[in-house]
Amino acid sequence: MSAWVLPDHIADVLPSEARHIEELRRELLDTARGYGFELVMPPLLEHLESLLTGTGEALDLQTFKLVDQLSGRMMGLRADTTPQVARIDAHLLNRRGVARLCYCGPVLHTRPDRPHATREPLQFGAEIYGHAGQEADLEALLLALDCLKATRVGPLTVDMADVRIVRSLLAGVPVDSAAIGRVHAALAAKDASELAALTRDFPAAAREGLRALVSLYGDEKVLAEAEKVLPSSPALREALANLRWLAGHVQGARIGFDLGDLRGYAYYSGARFFIYTPGASDALVRGGRYDEVGAVFGRNRHAVGFSLDIKELAAVAAKRPLKAAIRAPWVEGGPDAAELREAIAALRGQGETVVCVLPGHESEVDEFHCDRQLARDGGRWRVMAL
Amino acid sequence: MSAWVLPDHIADVLPSEARHIEELRRELLDTARGYGFELVMPPLLEHLESLLTGTGEALDLQTFKLVDQLSGRMMGLRADTTPQVARIDAHLLNRRGVARLCYCGPVLHTRPDRPHATREPLQFGAEIYGHAGQEADLEALLLALDCLKATRVGPLTVDMADVRIVRSLLAGVPVDSAAIGRVHAALAAKDASELAALTRDFPAAAREGLRALVSLYGDEKVLAEAEKVLPSSPALREALANLRWLAGHVQGARIGFDLGDLRGYAYYSGARFFIYTPGASDALVRGGRYDEVGAVFGRNRHAVGFSLDIKELAAVAAKRPLKAAIRAPWVEGGPDAAELREAIAALRGQGETVVCVLPGHESEVDEFHCDRQLARDGGRWRVMAL
Repeated sequence: MSAWVLPDHIADVLPSEARHIEELRRELLDTARGYGFELVMPPLLEHLESLLTGTGEALDLQTFKLVDQLSGRMMGLRADTTPQVARIDAHLLNRRGVARLCYCGPVLHTRPDRPHATREPLQFGAEIYGHAGQEADLEALLLALDCLKATRVGPLTVDMADVRIVRSLLAGVPVDSAAIGRVHAALAAKDASELAALTRDFPAAAREGLRALVSLYGDEKVLAEAEKVLPSSPALREALANLRWLAGHVQGARIGFDLGDLRGYAYYSGARFFIYTPGASDALVRGGRYDEVGAVFGRNRHAVGFSLDIKELAAVAAKRPLKAAIRAPWVEGGPDAAELREAIAALRGQGETVVCVLPGHESEVDEFHCDRQLARDGGRWRVMAL
Repeated sequence: MSAWVLPDHIADVLPSEARHIEELRRELLDTARGYGFELVMPPLLEHLESLLTGTGEALDLQTFKLVDQLSGRMMGLRADTTPQVARIDAHLLNRRGVARLCYCGPVLHTRPDRPHATREPLQFGAEIYGHAGQEADLEALLLALDCLKATRVGPLTVDMADVRIVRSLLAGVPVDSAAIGRVHAALAAKDASELAALTRDFPAAAREGLRALVSLYGDEKVLAEAEKVLPSSPALREALANLRWLAGHVQGARIGFDLGDLRGYAYYSGARFFIYTPGASDALVRGGRYDEVGAVFGRNRHAVGFSLDIKELAAVAAKRPLKAAIRAPWVEGGPDAAELREAIAALRGQGETVVCVLPGHESEVDEFHCDRQLARDGGRWRVMAL
């Protein structure tokens, strides 16, 4: 096998795409900064028990493991950054008030998430710690939308759900976790007959509620319908009020609800939102409330946030045009050379790209889209059209 | 052991430092872009034989290994980015002319390079492929110096050497590689008596030349001295002329030579430069010519470049002051709320950081250095001093 063949689902990012990704990266970080989110950089490697304890456990299969030669202990390559940021909030910052944190870096997956997914996403995310109220959910959602708008993504659809709805229906139903797993699978497949069979012996309220969930998707009318048909409970009422309030504060995006949707169920503890745009094969942004995430690090702080893969985003975000460059000749020695060096430095200082021709390569194909050149004219160096 | 304890030589980067590193990252990439270097992003993981073939072999001990579950093959986490960029130049870009490439991303080391070094440097580097002449060496060196100047590093010292000098002295001397290794060690330690013992049976010219190398360090006079005392050969004359020419084109940095210095000997094939600044425990920048690096990928292109660790750079580069932010109150509903939202969006659009207070957290310690606030004044929202 040739030395240049990469592993499956691992790829180089070449110049045009790399420039695009770097621009998106900056736009995302600057948008988060505009909201007051502080950047943190957790390490790529941690002891396995830090990465995979508590909320992280579901990540076990996705996490590459290796041995630390210094300690003999097992380490993991992070497959998700959120547990690390929760650790930083809980242990290192240790703030009493609200902490707004964001991050941007690679994560690695042992297996691709979807048939054409990369195993090395470039994960960007933002998280608010220490606020229980829905205002933090809203800020996370608005920031996610502003991030996508800053990166010139097409029309956006927000898909909302709340794991407390299914939880409230299953509360007190005496079934084991395997049975709950089958109920979840039937709900996810919107398989009403399977669901009916599985819930045959459930209390009537739970059975009817779960049955109703299968068709509780669509626009805001779904929320009113849910209030009518689902068995009322404080948790249910709060979840529905929450979703209505959040949806009422969003502008510039279509909002949909799917109250039986359970994706991220193991992760989220309250409202959750996925953001879609045409052309992306899956949700661009996944976010919501996950209040339990920091518990394993000794501080169970309220938490809400979102993340996205910049490599996926790059596939649907409009590319900025490449700024054309200036070509400069090679001049060896004499006052002309000194003046040329100064002219080049001044142009670069103004933000221009100046590519110097190396001797012997004067007639090369122009890889950098030079549309101007520095040329000697009337005793000085001037920028002239090519 | 607590879940928040990180492996040795692995650390989180917290907000103030992360902001500094992110600013340095942008300044370095923008400086390279000003020279016409195109960004590439090689993957963190590759098949072991791609990472460790040819020039990469010395990296074996530094490279973490793991098994690819998809293929059952061994993969490595990159410990250096240069072999990857050589692969990209050789195989993917496949350009006939000059290619200028740069990169910026984490690398991982099984063991720290020095007692207090991180095992996760953030490596930035730039490389020129396809030009054999010293003009490319000069461009790499000038870019490295401009990068450090852009990041507000103190006075710079360039330490230059050329591996062809030692090679020319050892050429034709009939000794095995173990003996050469001992000679290298004695040279590195400037141990004249050990060197004399090791080279006792060498031809007189080689013996005398190697002895002289021990004291051939200092300013530019060293080059003239070398011409006098070292046995002349075309390779030696070219190496010395090269160093003199490069030094003559550098401004704004002190230049020193150490012709017996062998650091990077296995890596470099010609002139090499290290750049130092007071306060840094080791060289900030390591660079030079390494013409063999792409051979294993089927195209042996001329190559010259440099790299640095942004985390090390951050320890000596002056921090930019934190831009103060604006605090905005939480207002629920009514026309005031809509106008507030617009005022916040407008300020953020101008590059301001606007931190919204979340209800219940009005009296919190200000983590984001807000020096102004948005307040209602005469029927509209105004920015006022805090």
